Amino acid sequence: MSELRLVGGSVLTMDESQPLLAPGEVGISGETIDYVGPPRGDGGGRVIDTGGKAVMPGLINAHTHAAMTLFRSFADDMPLQPWLEQKIWPLEAHLRPEDVFWGSQLGAIEMLRGGVTCFQDMYWHAPEACRAGLEAGMRVAPSGVLIGVIPNAEALLAEAIEFVDACLAAPHPRCHVRFGPHAPYTVPDAYLERVISAAAARGVPVHIHLSETEREVQDSLAAHGEPPVQHMERVGLFEVHTCAAHCVHLTADEVDILASRRVGVLASQTSNLKLGCGIVPLPDLLAAGARVGLATDGAASNNNLDLFEEIRLAALLHKGVRRDATLITAQEALELATWRAAEAVGIERLGRLRPGWLADVICLDLSGLHLQPGHHLVADLAYSAQSADVTEVVV
Amino acid sequence: MSELRLVGGSVLTMDESQPLLAPGEVGISGETIDYVGPPRGDGGGRVIDTGGKAVMPGLINAHTHAAMTLFRSFADDMPLQPWLEQKIWPLEAHLRPEDVFWGSQLGAIEMLRGGVTCFQDMYWHAPEACRAGLEAGMRVAPSGVLIGVIPNAEALLAEAIEFVDACLAAPHPRCHVRFGPHAPYTVPDAYLERVISAAAARGVPVHIHLSETEREVQDSLAAHGEPPVQHMERVGLFEVHTCAAHCVHLTADEVDILASRRVGVLASQTSNLKLGCGIVPLPDLLAAGARVGLATDGAASNNNLDLFEEIRLAALLHKGVRRDATLITAQEALELATWRAAEAVGIERLGRLRPGWLADVICLDLSGLHLQPGHHLVADLAYSAQSADVTEVVV
Repeated sequence: MSELRLVGGSVLTMDESQPLLAPGEVGISGETIDYVGPPRGDGGGRVIDTGGKAVMPGLINAHTHAAMTLFRSFADDMPLQPWLEQKIWPLEAHLRPEDVFWGSQLGAIEMLRGGVTCFQDMYWHAPEACRAGLEAGMRVAPSGVLIGVIPNAEALLAEAIEFVDACLAAPHPRCHVRFGPHAPYTVPDAYLERVISAAAARGVPVHIHLSETEREVQDSLAAHGEPPVQHMERVGLFEVHTCAAHCVHLTADEVDILASRRVGVLASQTSNLKLGCGIVPLPDLLAAGARVGLATDGAASNNNLDLFEEIRLAALLHKGVRRDATLITAQEALELATWRAAEAVGIERLGRLRPGWLADVICLDLSGLHLQPGHHLVADLAYSAQSADVTEVVV
Repeated sequence: MSELRLVGGSVLTMDESQPLLAPGEVGISGETIDYVGPPRGDGGGRVIDTGGKAVMPGLINAHTHAAMTLFRSFADDMPLQPWLEQKIWPLEAHLRPEDVFWGSQLGAIEMLRGGVTCFQDMYWHAPEACRAGLEAGMRVAPSGVLIGVIPNAEALLAEAIEFVDACLAAPHPRCHVRFGPHAPYTVPDAYLERVISAAAARGVPVHIHLSETEREVQDSLAAHGEPPVQHMERVGLFEVHTCAAHCVHLTADEVDILASRRVGVLASQTSNLKLGCGIVPLPDLLAAGARVGLATDGAASNNNLDLFEEIRLAALLHKGVRRDATLITAQEALELATWRAAEAVGIERLGRLRPGWLADVICLDLSGLHLQPGHHLVADLAYSAQSADVTEVVV
């Protein structure tokens, strides 16, 4: 019998073989799920009564800077460049490692409370962000920030390699370390090639910002004669598993490259809207078969770490912008925050409730007024549920 | 001294003369606010300690069909016409007055719980929707649905006049009745002229759907040689105060007409996105000086009645679509759900915390993780607050 049993709720597995069990049971032992099916009678293990609740995979925040939770509502309604140059970078210049720890832990607890069980992070003092997330009980995919155009570029790369090697030498079951080259425009090709080599040698993914703004695309065209994704393809980035945040401005060819090279596209819709960057072409990416996950970005540009908001936005935004109400259904929006996000981030056996898969599970109270009368659980979760409805989180 | 005093919270008045009092006090007697200022010492009245909370005007849902809460998650991810014809209209054909009462009351309680103190409603069996809202304790601006192209068009108009006259004969301080011609394409000009006359004779506003879809615009051009707003101007609709829901597809001339005729534009962004209709040109309307309020539309096309979601969307959507991060600031987004919405709906002395104004006030718990560290209250409320943070509602 399982060590922990979630019994009696409406189990939305996100698994085609048995999509909804109502009522159902999820059994967990150690790090993994060992049972998904109808409620079993009495038996061993700790039991949580999930009657009146939805049980589903934990949400995955595919791209954030958790420590930036400290900067929430510090500077808003500004374009990206002055926002960075006048507000964010001056603040960041004063961040100490312990600030990153506490900011990341605040972000981690906000995420957990809202049903996010895993986050992929890129920030300064990555060991602190990693420790904050792990101590909070989350699954973390941490990376530092590698910038090749500043005086301490060499030290940053050495630190990153040291951090990755330390994580690999003493593996934690909830830590999935990676390298974090900031973006093509801050990482010269020669430097990036060294990052790619380091990642390839260790079998570790790379997490990068890519094609976030029009200006970035124009600068890439001016510097390299090709847009950022094409340039990254030529430099060889996609030889390692790459997690590419934003991807707002893409040519059709670039959509195909991202899909065929199995790049994880991390869609940060709220942040892209708020900073005036634009709208990630999610329907095109999905039609091309790309791996896509939803993400909040940091709380300085969002201003929260609420994946339910991103799910709802995924299901709403593209319908309206493209005038097609059939684009990105409620079901697809939930997939983008669960197993599709896991594929994008590159963590295996995550994002579905299936025996043998990682036991990241959340429960939501379905008794809220905004979830009545309950015609369709998937639509209720995508369009009406709030992070505040989350009642239990297992990682 | 006031009958009820909200003491100690951060009072966001939405009033230029004293925008933020932290700490502050709001005093209420009867239907109105009688004090807004620093906390007063001891004294009479019932006291609610609002320490650690935000105190602000109640939110106004400028356009909804509250009873459609019964249809939440009944049919999703479908285009407007098949959604209406295959799903919604067949259901509505079976609605009895008591269904509308209970559906509206479910919607009203959802709204109250989320900080909405006033809603403008258009639906069948309007007296039931009105009674449901008033009994729940809300401020209601009810109307029936007038359609001129169906056999019982005459009976509908007679019933609407009867309902309006009954409301006017026995006024309720929280009831603001109006006429509800459905839309230009379902209300022939001659019929609409009779509605306008009835409204003008009684000094009652009109609540109508306007320019929701491209098809509606094309049909209007084909039938009248002019788009819907221009046509309504020529028919004389704007001689009475008009509340026009949606207004997604507007020419520049039509934006000017709406602004100069002081039409209330009821922006239902989520619904417009979800049904693939498009995006209301909010920045253009505001630049032209139009009266604009935010609205949820019905829960069949939203799928909730959450104004905080609409506030956040107003502050995010237009920035991203137009690639300008300065459009619709956090402050403006909150205005669109408070005093601007009150102007749009046509209810006086509503939407600001100011002595002599209507005492619709809400409190929000600021202790949530998603509201830390609290750099800027206005940004926190617009970008991070959730309907679940609402703790007290006064109407």
